[in-house]
Amino acid sequence: MNDQEAFAIAVEEATIGYKEGGVPIGAALISRDGKLLGRGHNMRVQKGSAIHHGETAALENSGRLPASAYKGATMFTTLSPCDMCTGACILYGISRVVIGENKTFVGGEAYLKQRGIEVVVMENKEMQDLMEKFIKEKPEVWNEDIGEEERVYSKEK
Amino acid sequence: MNDQEAFAIAVEEATIGYKEGGVPIGAALISRDGKLLGRGHNMRVQKGSAIHHGETAALENSGRLPASAYKGATMFTTLSPCDMCTGACILYGISRVVIGENKTFVGGEAYLKQRGIEVVVMENKEMQDLMEKFIKEKPEVWNEDIGEEERVYSKEK
Ligand SMILES: [Ca+2]
Ligand SMILES: [Ca+2]
Ligand SMILES: [Zn+2]
Ligand SMILES: [Zn+2]
Repeated sequence: MNDQEAFAIAVEEATIGYKEGGVPIGAALISRDGKLLGRGHNMRVQKGSAIHHGETAALENSGRLPASAYKGATMFTTLSPCDMCTGACILYGISRVVIGENKTFVGGEAYLKQRGIEVVVMENKEMQDLMEKFIKEKPEVWNEDIGEEERVYSKEK
Repeated sequence: MNDQEAFAIAVEEATIGYKEGGVPIGAALISRDGKLLGRGHNMRVQKGSAIHHGETAALENSGRLPASAYKGATMFTTLSPCDMCTGACILYGISRVVIGENKTFVGGEAYLKQRGIEVVVMENKEMQDLMEKFIKEKPEVWNEDIGEEERVYSKEK
């Protein structure tokens, strides 16, 4: 599949998450030859989980894979990845991270680049609006999800 | 509890993991006032999981917590944390990471320090021996867990 089709899966996951009452962030992990390895969305609310973010859920749902499977792979995510998800992409040697938007939050983009990972930001208004709506509705859940006590727009230094 | 008691929990978790046939890395998250928030061990083999490492399992088993709960907290882990677990500690603003050993593998120690987290390495021979034994027995599982195709001793640059 192409980038637009892959990103549409991440958007679908984010939308499912929102409808479940959760943090609306979705992701899809796509292999170098355009196949879906795994997809998922943030499960903080649904599972009481501190580690199932969009990207880590997509990795988890990809199951056990050898290092070679991640080479050339792209993580599509609706929002700029937090430090944990940034580290997860680095750990597995994912080659590219395509981000829906980073207006509501900037995670580890600079560090991804520093570690040799290509970063693309799509500036997707639909995902930005969904995050803004969610943060307005459940600010305390969002702050909890990014380990903050008050709204922050970036965790980069 | 004190550091020795807390680290003993991480060792216990690593030992449980080894007995289950899994990657023998354990962790315990301890609050600033010395209370156990959560404990866990790597579940790659047991759950077919790509994200339940020792430290992330301890975070997951701590459940949903506000950012304030992680302030002043210490993550005790039997092995130098990989990039994902490093990022997870940074995300939640954990103050200190106490590492059993880093002879078999060095993860994100430099980056933890760069992000303001105190890092203590105990040079624990028991945990080093357990990891060496495991890596000798199941090298392919270990390489998979750290996203490599051959043994590496460090993922720092
Ligand atoms: Ca903070
Ligand atoms: Ca690699
Ligand atoms: Zn994340
Ligand atoms: Zn790890």
